[in-house]
Amino acid sequence: MADTTTKKTIILFSGDFDKVMAALIIANGAAAMGDDVTLFFTFWGLNALRRPEKIKAEKKPLQGMFGRMMPRGIKKLGMSKMNFAGMGPVMMNKVIKSEGGMTLQQLLDSAIEQGVKLVACTLTMDLLGFKKDELLDGVEYAGVAAYLAEADEANVNLFI
Amino acid sequence: MADTTTKKTIILFSGDFDKVMAALIIANGAAAMGDDVTLFFTFWGLNALRRPEKIKAEKKPLQGMFGRMMPRGIKKLGMSKMNFAGMGPVMMNKVIKSEGGMTLQQLLDSAIEQGVKLVACTLTMDLLGFKKDELLDGVEYAGVAAYLAEADEANVNLFI
Amino acid sequence: MADTTTKKTIILFSGDFDKVMAALIIANGAAAMGDDVTLFFTFWGLNALRRPEKIKAEKKPLQGMFGRMMPRGIKKLGMSKMNFAGMGPVMMNKVIKSEGGMTLQQLLDSAIEQGVKLVACTLTMDLLGFKKDELLDGVEYAGVAAYLAEADEANVNLFI
Repeated sequence: MADTTTKKTIILFSGDFDKVMAALIIANGAAAMGDDVTLFFTFWGLNALRRPEKIKAEKKPLQGMFGRMMPRGIKKLGMSKMNFAGMGPVMMNKVIKSEGGMTLQQLLDSAIEQGVKLVACTLTMDLLGFKKDELLDGVEYAGVAAYLAEADEANVNLFI
Repeated sequence: MADTTTKKTIILFSGDFDKVMAALIIANGAAAMGDDVTLFFTFWGLNALRRPEKIKAEKKPLQGMFGRMMPRGIKKLGMSKMNFAGMGPVMMNKVIKSEGGMTLQQLLDSAIEQGVKLVACTLTMDLLGFKKDELLDGVEYAGVAAYLAEADEANVNLFI
Repeated sequence: MADTTTKKTIILFSGDFDKVMAALIIANGAAAMGDDVTLFFTFWGLNALRRPEKIKAEKKPLQGMFGRMMPRGIKKLGMSKMNFAGMGPVMMNKVIKSEGGMTLQQLLDSAIEQGVKLVACTLTMDLLGFKKDELLDGVEYAGVAAYLAEADEANVNLFI
């Protein structure tokens, strides 16, 4: 099937538990079928790439506030619906485990293992005040031109 | 135009009245132009496929709560904006009728009549605790691999 | 690179500051690389095309209420997260300027200068009660068939 291998790109704009989950399920599924997959994290989606620990960094006041108010990493994301002040994701993870499914963290680990390329959007990093050492190891950094170059080579391009 | 007929896929992640409407308008439009169209319902989008009546089913506590709190079917969906505690969709349906447009129910019926394929995502059904007999007749069931196989054959793939 | 020039379409369903920004950044980037780009504004995305001044128009009561409650133009859009009762966009614009970035208004102006085609969805205009003289000059008007015809010619089609 090597010559039918095709590329997929997903812009992950959302930082909601459920949308990040949808993106990672598609990315893992495509990678398992032998496709090249690139996930572009932008705006609130960048929260999924944050390290869980506090990292000191010089930021403008609004960026500092954004940094403190937004979730640090994939284990802290809230749901777009049925969030119940943060209990939604906790309960959802319980259901996932009881159904034999993968948690967000496991889906992210699996994506990395399968070679899914994780790219952080540098333009929105600048806006939101994220520094590279606040994000996970292995993340690549690029802008819209790089996204478009990859999307031109892909046969499925989603915005989530 | 038979040989230029092309395929479209739409992942309907959202269960919001307005987004479901957008998806169904695009699906109906494409089907009217002779395209093969597949709508994949996942996460909150599954609510659009629920039967209106209560169906007894064994569920985990969170799944039971989700089932009770989420809208049963396309006539119960709320809007993503201007919902006004449920009055938004009622008023919107009035405007739709006075403008000679189609309600969500009519758009769904038309999509089915035109042969649009409705697929429920089995992975998120398991998560949210939906059973097949809670969803409409005629719905097909599949996972991410089936989605990707169809998307590979399509020239327009949207995530709504 | 003339013969590799390709077309992009974006349906802009959302009227949120941050999503409109994402759409305009992609549109400007693609136009700068020589691509044909069409932005289809539908539902809440139409707010980004409204003129800032009040325009008298005959509307049904719900449409009048929608018109009064929804933002008039790209400078009035709220954010999907961290809106802080309208202070979010104000602060975000400050950060954008201090980072040397482009405001929403500048991104829209640049898109127009670069020849990005702006199309307002007539079906949702009718629903929400928007009249042509409420929207910016230079906007084109079309329905779902026109969108699908363009999407069939494009290699990247996003729904934002």
